[in-house]
Amino acid sequence: MRMEQFRNIGLIGRLGSARVIDTLKRLKKFLIAHDLNVVLEEATAGLLPGHGLQVCSKKNIGEVSDLVIVVGGDGSLLGAARALARHNVPVLGVNRGRLGFLTDISPDEIETRVAEILSGRYIAESRFLLDMEVRREGQPIGDGDALNDVVLHPGKSTRMIEFELYIEGQFVYSQKSDGLIISTPTGSTAYALSGGGPIMHPKLDAIVLVPMFPHTLSSRPIVVDGNSELKIIIGSQNETYPHVSCDGQNHVNCAPGDAIYIKKKPQKLRLIHPVDHNYYAVCREKLGWGSRLG
Amino acid sequence: MRMEQFRNIGLIGRLGSARVIDTLKRLKKFLIAHDLNVVLEEATAGLLPGHGLQVCSKKNIGEVSDLVIVVGGDGSLLGAARALARHNVPVLGVNRGRLGFLTDISPDEIETRVAEILSGRYIAESRFLLDMEVRREGQPIGDGDALNDVVLHPGKSTRMIEFELYIEGQFVYSQKSDGLIISTPTGSTAYALSGGGPIMHPKLDAIVLVPMFPHTLSSRPIVVDGNSELKIIIGSQNETYPHVSCDGQNHVNCAPGDAIYIKKKPQKLRLIHPVDHNYYAVCREKLGWGSRLG
Amino acid sequence: MRMEQFRNIGLIGRLGSARVIDTLKRLKKFLIAHDLNVVLEEATAGLLPGHGLQVCSKKNIGEVSDLVIVVGGDGSLLGAARALARHNVPVLGVNRGRLGFLTDISPDEIETRVAEILSGRYIAESRFLLDMEVRREGQPIGDGDALNDVVLHPGKSTRMIEFELYIEGQFVYSQKSDGLIISTPTGSTAYALSGGGPIMHPKLDAIVLVPMFPHTLSSRPIVVDGNSELKIIIGSQNETYPHVSCDGQNHVNCAPGDAIYIKKKPQKLRLIHPVDHNYYAVCREKLGWGSRLG
Amino acid sequence: MRMEQFRNIGLIGRLGSARVIDTLKRLKKFLIAHDLNVVLEEATAGLLPGHGLQVCSKKNIGEVSDLVIVVGGDGSLLGAARALARHNVPVLGVNRGRLGFLTDISPDEIETRVAEILSGRYIAESRFLLDMEVRREGQPIGDGDALNDVVLHPGKSTRMIEFELYIEGQFVYSQKSDGLIISTPTGSTAYALSGGGPIMHPKLDAIVLVPMFPHTLSSRPIVVDGNSELKIIIGSQNETYPHVSCDGQNHVNCAPGDAIYIKKKPQKLRLIHPVDHNYYAVCREKLGWGSRLG
Repeated sequence: MRMEQFRNIGLIGRLGSARVIDTLKRLKKFLIAHDLNVVLEEATAGLLPGHGLQVCSKKNIGEVSDLVIVVGGDGSLLGAARALARHNVPVLGVNRGRLGFLTDISPDEIETRVAEILSGRYIAESRFLLDMEVRREGQPIGDGDALNDVVLHPGKSTRMIEFELYIEGQFVYSQKSDGLIISTPTGSTAYALSGGGPIMHPKLDAIVLVPMFPHTLSSRPIVVDGNSELKIIIGSQNETYPHVSCDGQNHVNCAPGDAIYIKKKPQKLRLIHPVDHNYYAVCREKLGWGSRLG
Repeated sequence: MRMEQFRNIGLIGRLGSARVIDTLKRLKKFLIAHDLNVVLEEATAGLLPGHGLQVCSKKNIGEVSDLVIVVGGDGSLLGAARALARHNVPVLGVNRGRLGFLTDISPDEIETRVAEILSGRYIAESRFLLDMEVRREGQPIGDGDALNDVVLHPGKSTRMIEFELYIEGQFVYSQKSDGLIISTPTGSTAYALSGGGPIMHPKLDAIVLVPMFPHTLSSRPIVVDGNSELKIIIGSQNETYPHVSCDGQNHVNCAPGDAIYIKKKPQKLRLIHPVDHNYYAVCREKLGWGSRLG
Repeated sequence: MRMEQFRNIGLIGRLGSARVIDTLKRLKKFLIAHDLNVVLEEATAGLLPGHGLQVCSKKNIGEVSDLVIVVGGDGSLLGAARALARHNVPVLGVNRGRLGFLTDISPDEIETRVAEILSGRYIAESRFLLDMEVRREGQPIGDGDALNDVVLHPGKSTRMIEFELYIEGQFVYSQKSDGLIISTPTGSTAYALSGGGPIMHPKLDAIVLVPMFPHTLSSRPIVVDGNSELKIIIGSQNETYPHVSCDGQNHVNCAPGDAIYIKKKPQKLRLIHPVDHNYYAVCREKLGWGSRLG
Repeated sequence: MRMEQFRNIGLIGRLGSARVIDTLKRLKKFLIAHDLNVVLEEATAGLLPGHGLQVCSKKNIGEVSDLVIVVGGDGSLLGAARALARHNVPVLGVNRGRLGFLTDISPDEIETRVAEILSGRYIAESRFLLDMEVRREGQPIGDGDALNDVVLHPGKSTRMIEFELYIEGQFVYSQKSDGLIISTPTGSTAYALSGGGPIMHPKLDAIVLVPMFPHTLSSRPIVVDGNSELKIIIGSQNETYPHVSCDGQNHVNCAPGDAIYIKKKPQKLRLIHPVDHNYYAVCREKLGWGSRLG
């Protein structure tokens, strides 16, 4: 794998951060100096007035790029991931000075790290996404996709939701709770972790279902095969109109009797890391786990 | 699959229970009436004086049987599983009146259920076991295998153990805690669940590591691929001599500096269920989960 | 203490339940037969057409009654408690067939139990309530009181709230989370329990603060003296407009920078139980704890 | 309150730490320069050869001192607390460079801090201890006292213990578990916290009972009044001979049928802090809680 492999480099930056603008400028300079073609995502282009570069929508930047670099936090990468996964383009995350689970390159080391990656020295891994669809009387009324999690929550209503859960067509339980988090391994260190879910290694092909404040104390996180098809039926006696969110970034309003279908998406996100990347090192750093014994 | 398939039926019973003896007698009568060859496990034979049947050690009963029926609780099946897995013989669990995760046939329905299974109507699933070996300065000093879990615990010493964990050769963390539970999906509804681990569907090819009373509050259960090779190094500064137990039934004493290796066993347990078996129904029953909404 | 003590008996019933109406009729008949004066709460009166009794608002029924009997679930008693606490009137809870923490008399045994209580054989205990006030730039903008809990939650906005917590004027922490449950001992078996809080005996003079899905894993429930004054400041950088609910039954909308003050109310709820009432027996029944060993 | 108040200063140091010896020397020099009478605890005296000072046993040092300074970690203070509480002598904790919950003076600032305290500027608080006694057929067979916690655990036997719990003479539950932690507010940030117990403010007069790996998932931490008398009966069918430990430092062996009685000790530990001591600041530092918002 050689440098020529990545000729068109897409850049996406988080808005509202001076540090991100600085990093984008350094990246632009570095990439142009290496004779690469830089494509700016629309909103990001607004951060670099007078840039003189090709501009592309977030939706399409994955199609015209051989590699997309996202500068920001894990949230920024999350926001881009769903669009990029469709094009199967490799994605590299640069953080804003604080290590992220998805954005593991620091701005300080950006030139060295990107040079390494352009020269073909990197680890590529694929992360799966979830596909969610809400149906009312059999008809689709809304959908979404998620790299981290699909969350059923009360929306603006009072708190308890009553719903039935089915996995692979098998009835699992009915539950009264504040909702349910359905998380990928990628999302297992995010919201699901706060809710008491386990950490799942990104390579694991599994989905975890974490009940939120369940009325029954024995309702615990369940881990199932990543290919399982899930269905949630909002109880028809329910007085609440709960919401279903994808990665906390957009949602569908549900009504009593609605069915929510969740399954793995066929397209995956291709995530690029430096060769010395180590998932557990990121966990240690971010979760304060103990380092090696004397 | 037809009745002839199972010609030699091994019987293993839990000791010290009048109800088990009663069930064994009914089973013996039923099987002989169907012209099947009944083989009794040694200790079980002692429960049926004057039985006039072939007797075999627990270690070898799997070799001479086409099907082994275990009568008792989940603990009895656990005790037999490790010996039976070596012979790849199908195993059926009969409980003592209270549903188990592994023993899902009730004594009341024993004739009908066993008839069904003998006639070829059953679900077979394979459950993996863990292989554990302790090495001191590179030399093996003890080993064991587990269907549920391998547990590192303080033994008779004071409570905190300091150890390092490695997964697939990668350093994960050093931890001060009361120990670590390494559980299969089968064991995820047993000890690991009490320790805050997730429920893992038996089909999932995964291992969960549950820290016991960790000093660091952010040490949480981790789920990894079932083929992961794990290594635990007992801290050399440790004053404790912890134990490693397999299924809570036998243990190896460790010393500071010892290495514990854990990985999936090549042989699996073949577990037989009635055709209407449903994992989640067992969870609902045993964990008090909610049944279907009105 | 003699029967004459309770001359005027107020009745409050949960709406929408045939069983409750039946119990109210039996109660009315029993009380009148004992020459007692029965007062119906307004909405309850609508359940008993042609009753020919005195009617009173929920707000004032506590003033004209010597004892108020609430028929329904714990939620019904919760709904009445805040009004009744102001009048210091004893309150008795009758459930709808399923034991509650607050409503521990079954409809089946209603005549015997009420006779006992009227004859002066009962246990009285006082339960404290919380007083909540929201201030914006120093001016009160809303308030409420709660027998169970005051809950800060995201309302209809996205999930994370950033706030500072002060106890007795001392800064405790800033937290990013889905919110905070501030619960009395009475509420400790309700929502706070689902959130991981401890069970607090009703006699304990303490308040528990349970963080909801905290971003920091080491944020844990904190138990403080019942007389502690609490203050929560909604972070001024917050993009959310969280809500503060009292007993899940009414709420105040907050804005960034608002201060929420919470302290014990001077008035307490006087709760009446049969003489054989036992808090732990209710826990065993409702939480499935183990009964006495063989 | 003036400097003369503390004339005889006892010193206790943790063994096996060069840093502790250095701090003890600085303390000795400082105290002698201020014309105070220094008394060394026996084992501590061994750390300072040629000291020329009065020596006293740990048991009696509290009687001859007006103030005892303990140099070490929280564990060292714990080890001394039980002896010192008997004499009602004020105790000051100096850590070894890392903040403790009980030892909140750093070696770096020792002279200034101790001068302040000697001049009468300090906060004094009292911490209660637990008294534990094991009885067999009514006769005492062992006892102990604890500043942090009394722990019932399996000792060297297999893991599950079956026992009954009584609070104030009322039966609470029977439980199958790895044991039970009975903790004071002081101990609530130690072992009980790892086990899922709440943090209890030191001023709270309460005891928390934390079940260890309970078989029943609805067995949760219970907080009761600090004056509650507790009784645990080891199930007579038990095959295990569990241990009861006090502060993890000594234990009594139990047998099936034994009764363990736990109640508050009449004597309390008088703990001295600098005037700017803040419990929540220690929590933030040690548990990584968030500091004040921008």
